[in-house]
Amino acid sequence: MKGNIIVGQSGGPTAVINSSLAGVFSAAKELGVNKIYGMVHGIQGFLNESFCDISEYVKDKGDVELLKRTPSAFLGSCRYKLPKIEGNEATYDKMFEIMEKYDIECLFYIGGNDSMDTIKMLSDYAAAKGKSQRFVGVPKTIDNDLPITDHCPGYASAAKYIATSLKEIIRDNESFGVEKPTVTVVEIMGRHAGWLTAAAALAKGEDCHGADMICLPEVDFDMEKFMERVKYLAATKHSVVLAVSEGVKLADGRFVCELGGGADFVDAFGHKQLSGCAVVLANKIAAETGLKTRAIEFSTLQRAATHIASLTDINEAFECGYRAVMAAEAGKTGMMITIDRAEGDAYQISYGIYDIHQIANVERPVPAEWITEDGTQIGQGYLDYARPMILGELQPMMVDGLPRHLVRK
Amino acid sequence: MKGNIIVGQSGGPTAVINSSLAGVFSAAKELGVNKIYGMVHGIQGFLNESFCDISEYVKDKGDVELLKRTPSAFLGSCRYKLPKIEGNEATYDKMFEIMEKYDIECLFYIGGNDSMDTIKMLSDYAAAKGKSQRFVGVPKTIDNDLPITDHCPGYASAAKYIATSLKEIIRDNESFGVEKPTVTVVEIMGRHAGWLTAAAALAKGEDCHGADMICLPEVDFDMEKFMERVKYLAATKHSVVLAVSEGVKLADGRFVCELGGGADFVDAFGHKQLSGCAVVLANKIAAETGLKTRAIEFSTLQRAATHIASLTDINEAFECGYRAVMAAEAGKTGMMITIDRAEGDAYQISYGIYDIHQIANVERPVPAEWITEDGTQIGQGYLDYARPMILGELQPMMVDGLPRHLVRK
Repeated sequence: MKGNIIVGQSGGPTAVINSSLAGVFSAAKELGVNKIYGMVHGIQGFLNESFCDISEYVKDKGDVELLKRTPSAFLGSCRYKLPKIEGNEATYDKMFEIMEKYDIECLFYIGGNDSMDTIKMLSDYAAAKGKSQRFVGVPKTIDNDLPITDHCPGYASAAKYIATSLKEIIRDNESFGVEKPTVTVVEIMGRHAGWLTAAAALAKGEDCHGADMICLPEVDFDMEKFMERVKYLAATKHSVVLAVSEGVKLADGRFVCELGGGADFVDAFGHKQLSGCAVVLANKIAAETGLKTRAIEFSTLQRAATHIASLTDINEAFECGYRAVMAAEAGKTGMMITIDRAEGDAYQISYGIYDIHQIANVERPVPAEWITEDGTQIGQGYLDYARPMILGELQPMMVDGLPRHLVRK
Repeated sequence: MKGNIIVGQSGGPTAVINSSLAGVFSAAKELGVNKIYGMVHGIQGFLNESFCDISEYVKDKGDVELLKRTPSAFLGSCRYKLPKIEGNEATYDKMFEIMEKYDIECLFYIGGNDSMDTIKMLSDYAAAKGKSQRFVGVPKTIDNDLPITDHCPGYASAAKYIATSLKEIIRDNESFGVEKPTVTVVEIMGRHAGWLTAAAALAKGEDCHGADMICLPEVDFDMEKFMERVKYLAATKHSVVLAVSEGVKLADGRFVCELGGGADFVDAFGHKQLSGCAVVLANKIAAETGLKTRAIEFSTLQRAATHIASLTDINEAFECGYRAVMAAEAGKTGMMITIDRAEGDAYQISYGIYDIHQIANVERPVPAEWITEDGTQIGQGYLDYARPMILGELQPMMVDGLPRHLVRK
């Protein structure tokens, strides 16, 4: 590669989004790329020429290792969506002018559905205008809802955090309860897809009873059946722990969290900002049963807990970044790196690359056959799918008793 | 020791309460104690003769190690307070009858202020009636509010979890914010003492800006000054993270969480059940500034996260349990094991034992000189105190990608 490259991070951070950045950086170094620019706060920073030179922070392989152990977007993230090309040619022209100014030959964007839309539009515009710059997407989302790829870097570490923390919460909840059980409702991220909430199923094992119900947004939430089941559980167990997606909604389309009467927020993409369905449900259970209840939200911890990230996930995230650069070097553009899994019991993956038009803005739900018939538990199909992805740990570098992170100053 | 022993766990669990149990067990084994009984659900279980034989679960040193890695009370806990002796002699007579029936020579109780009250009353009753059984307390509380002892086992691991998670939350919060900052309010446990919230100060370092305000219950909460400071921070920084104790209250005595209009709950000890001050403050900030806000509660995770426990804490918890048995063997009763720290810069501790009457029902707040004059930050005195206690980790035993726990079936 003769020119320079630029890389950005977009959307909600993950525990391993910086491993993908480390992969991009390492491949570019290997290819002898002159300048490895980072967009500060994604494509929004790009538009303001807010760039950094990643080599100033990542000086050796030790820094690469520290970057892999650093949560959240090292370069800064954004939730900025490019306008459609038609009628906004000036914005696109400006972006290509910036790339030419900095002699940028390839642009890499580490992100989810919305970010892949950015890769699509930039590569479409380049094709239409006969531009030579290349654009490759690196998959990243704790939501695991990108199509084509078997799974997304970031998901497995969030799943490992959720299952680890849920085991600890269940143990804590079980410690009391001589007289009356405590009902704990744990709220897990995932607006439309229940992948993260499904990870609650991983907690169950030889040493843990697991969650008593797992409620995904893929299944209509039936309040009456839910309350009936809670009452049954509370009558038969001294500890009840429920895992519920932030996005669960009634058959009429109303989100459960809206039943609490809280204010609604809408983010820059027009997504409704959800929160509080655990509080709504815990309050309802307390009012109807008189039991002690507790609402717990994993909140941003589930996407930021690099200290308990999956080594498998870290390594795959790194590879996706690395291979994006190698693909661009080989002339690819308008594509995203994918993780492809071989059929069979053993966990065997390879990396592919796929047309971005089939990926951008498409959401993949949890397959219906992995949800039990009554809609409140997750079946073996999911466990076989997810278990290999959460294996292994990468010991944090501890300084003064806490995990050390790499800083962009 | 000729007779048997019994051990119980009481109050809110901690990440290392089972290390103390492991210490009690190991010392008793070393002394050749015949039966090492566990109270199932503390003194409440004791009254129902709900005992287990710990040797059935802890068969070798491998099991001892697994017990040290197991969160929450292995034996089950309770929040049951013995009635006062006067007028309730029958209850006490029954307890001594049970001890005689099982040939129990010594009783150990791992707990906080309320649990030490149990040790006090049982030893007082034994003294009054000329009974030979001995009663020794093992300190345990994430709240760190027991007097006499330099610190309490359980606190340091909660502090390590809080500081680790806060660093991750701050990184996550900093990843956005090109246009407007996000204000995240993190709620930390601690009804009356701010020890846990003070641990937020540990997050600050070479690689982390730390919390922008740290609000302890020891300082009257001034809503006007708080809002003024938040507005100033939001005008000067692109990320604002505030650490607030669940127990913060206004000068007039009202808890901040009560301003949200939620229902009040009172637990078996008559403690008000608090929750939601982060939500109250986040909603207020959003309403007055229009900024995006987020409320995060560490909830039970801060006391159950054995996967990131402090090795120093685990070892000290073990020693406290071990030494309680050795003290009882030497004839001590009506006392609690203490951790005594030597003066000077180096962290040097020794173990002592102290009259339970000076400890039970006494709460120790964070010293005023460790809180900055404006009441919103924690000074070096606390950092020097707490930093050595969070050092070291004990690698969890990972099975199928998750920490394995020891189970009492």
